[in-house]
Amino acid sequence: METPEDFTISCPIPIAQYPHVLLAHGGGGKLMHQLIETMFLATFSSGDRNRHDAAEIDLKSSRTAFTTDSYVVQPLFFPGGDIGSLAVNGTVNDLAMCGARPLYLSVGFILEEGLSMATLWRVVRSIQQAATAANVQIVTGDTKVVDKGKADGIFINTAGIGAIEHSFAIAPPSVKPGDVLLLNGDLGRHGIAIMAVREGLEFESQIESDSAPLASLVLQLLEAKIEIHCLRDLTRGGLSSALNEIAQAAGVTIAIDENCIPIREDVQGACEILGFDPLYVANEGRFVAFVAPSEAPRALQIMRSHSLGASAQIIGNVTESNSSGFVTMNSKIGTQRIVDMLSGEQLPRIC
Amino acid sequence: METPEDFTISCPIPIAQYPHVLLAHGGGGKLMHQLIETMFLATFSSGDRNRHDAAEIDLKSSRTAFTTDSYVVQPLFFPGGDIGSLAVNGTVNDLAMCGARPLYLSVGFILEEGLSMATLWRVVRSIQQAATAANVQIVTGDTKVVDKGKADGIFINTAGIGAIEHSFAIAPPSVKPGDVLLLNGDLGRHGIAIMAVREGLEFESQIESDSAPLASLVLQLLEAKIEIHCLRDLTRGGLSSALNEIAQAAGVTIAIDENCIPIREDVQGACEILGFDPLYVANEGRFVAFVAPSEAPRALQIMRSHSLGASAQIIGNVTESNSSGFVTMNSKIGTQRIVDMLSGEQLPRIC
Repeated sequence: METPEDFTISCPIPIAQYPHVLLAHGGGGKLMHQLIETMFLATFSSGDRNRHDAAEIDLKSSRTAFTTDSYVVQPLFFPGGDIGSLAVNGTVNDLAMCGARPLYLSVGFILEEGLSMATLWRVVRSIQQAATAANVQIVTGDTKVVDKGKADGIFINTAGIGAIEHSFAIAPPSVKPGDVLLLNGDLGRHGIAIMAVREGLEFESQIESDSAPLASLVLQLLEAKIEIHCLRDLTRGGLSSALNEIAQAAGVTIAIDENCIPIREDVQGACEILGFDPLYVANEGRFVAFVAPSEAPRALQIMRSHSLGASAQIIGNVTESNSSGFVTMNSKIGTQRIVDMLSGEQLPRIC
Repeated sequence: METPEDFTISCPIPIAQYPHVLLAHGGGGKLMHQLIETMFLATFSSGDRNRHDAAEIDLKSSRTAFTTDSYVVQPLFFPGGDIGSLAVNGTVNDLAMCGARPLYLSVGFILEEGLSMATLWRVVRSIQQAATAANVQIVTGDTKVVDKGKADGIFINTAGIGAIEHSFAIAPPSVKPGDVLLLNGDLGRHGIAIMAVREGLEFESQIESDSAPLASLVLQLLEAKIEIHCLRDLTRGGLSSALNEIAQAAGVTIAIDENCIPIREDVQGACEILGFDPLYVANEGRFVAFVAPSEAPRALQIMRSHSLGASAQIIGNVTESNSSGFVTMNSKIGTQRIVDMLSGEQLPRIC
């Protein structure tokens, strides 16, 4: 594992000369070109296609998915990830939630004047490693620098393009009564990992973010012809906001069972200390799949055989259509309650 | 023309209740959904495709262009444009510089807590109007809110996808000795318009940004089968940085003639007062086209018959290949000089 000091040594921009990002690194002149050529293109480059205003990409499928997300997470580095890997995984996951195969990413940096050059390099390296792991190519980018005090170190936008190779309509309107909900793993780790660093909390075991690229797991389900009706990753607002959104968009009632929702004991404990409900805490490697009931056992088996679904569970089902969109939960103590959408802000700058 | 007050009245979010953007508007809960549904989707929506994690788009051509830019311009509103129209035109122009027909845009907002809701609405409306004018659809987006003091009002990222319908290789390696350079209009207005507002300067006539979508002009050249070798828009770093980049990438010498470069008198005067060289000042609606010499008269005629090329000029040609990449200029007083790439930062946060 490289230490922060290693990035000072390996940085392709001479740190002695440029220890920090300057406004001129975004000014369109020589310094910007040096940064783009030696750091970004040399790291991300796949041939010559990055060198122009736009990249030319190959799309073989007839159906294409397109998405974007900006990343403003604070701190930039946290157990289990950093803003760079998050910016790749988050956008890859948005494509995966359409059942698309992620192919190409753009990366737009907004840097604060005075950002440590070694920090930028560490983030750039993390982006490239995450892109390799997720099997996507970074083909185009942009860099802006704003004056000190007008941003917060580094903000990243990624946009992603993916190929839709299946013939399902994976979206809320496809959700039907009887559909079974599968969850690919335990909840709450990303939010708690961020919060622990931010608040200086220490737990017995370190809680790491679950940040991961979900496309290969989703593509395995699709290759096995599992009849998927809807997919949703459980980021800002957590499981409860995602399910409420789908329930409302589909006009259905969703019933989940608290006993079936995997939450690690240390995460549960941290949530109790911090006053959070884990159903609302952000995840970056978790999703729910709505599948036809007859397909649920096979889907669960496929999920569990994948490293990102080893602790997958069936957590509920769709009970009613023509509903105004509710989520109900059978609690551990046997009562039933409505699980509402997050109303305010639980954890700012979680992604 | 609507006044800022009109946007307070027409804003789809009730200003009395939410005069400013709150952290919760980016938190994944009810307020974020209200903002997305009533402001963004209602304004940008083209059918239902924006409602999921990613949008599905139709791409009919076999060749596709993909690009991204972040926009951090300060002030947000300036004569001739604003950050919203700039974020559309800038990305549309990057696609146009590949000779691509711009089709789809993503829009990612990073908002500072406390931003006036009416200001956000004014920017959103401007984005939609610019998208309509440029004939592109906004199909996917994202909103993040960061704490007050950690950004500067509003930053926007757009990524764009376009269809390449021609069969040319429009890129620096296609540039050849003899190629003629055409410029579609006068230089320096965007940079000076921004600077005038920022510094509180008043000139006899108001200098407006040249911000404009260039795709329809480029597509007219392509439809007329003009043999285009390279295109470049003259943003950060201006004409001189763009030509130096191409000269270096293509390994050629480019000679331009100062007498042929249109610069308005008021812009020239403002540059003299501010100590700027207009060759380095950013434009947002200007580009150079490198065309085969036999095609130059016809290309000039097509440019001049388009509203964005009315004052187009032939400004120079490519004189040598196997060069290490120089740009020379015959000056107005008859001398010849090297025009170098911008070395530092001329105008921060120009786009």
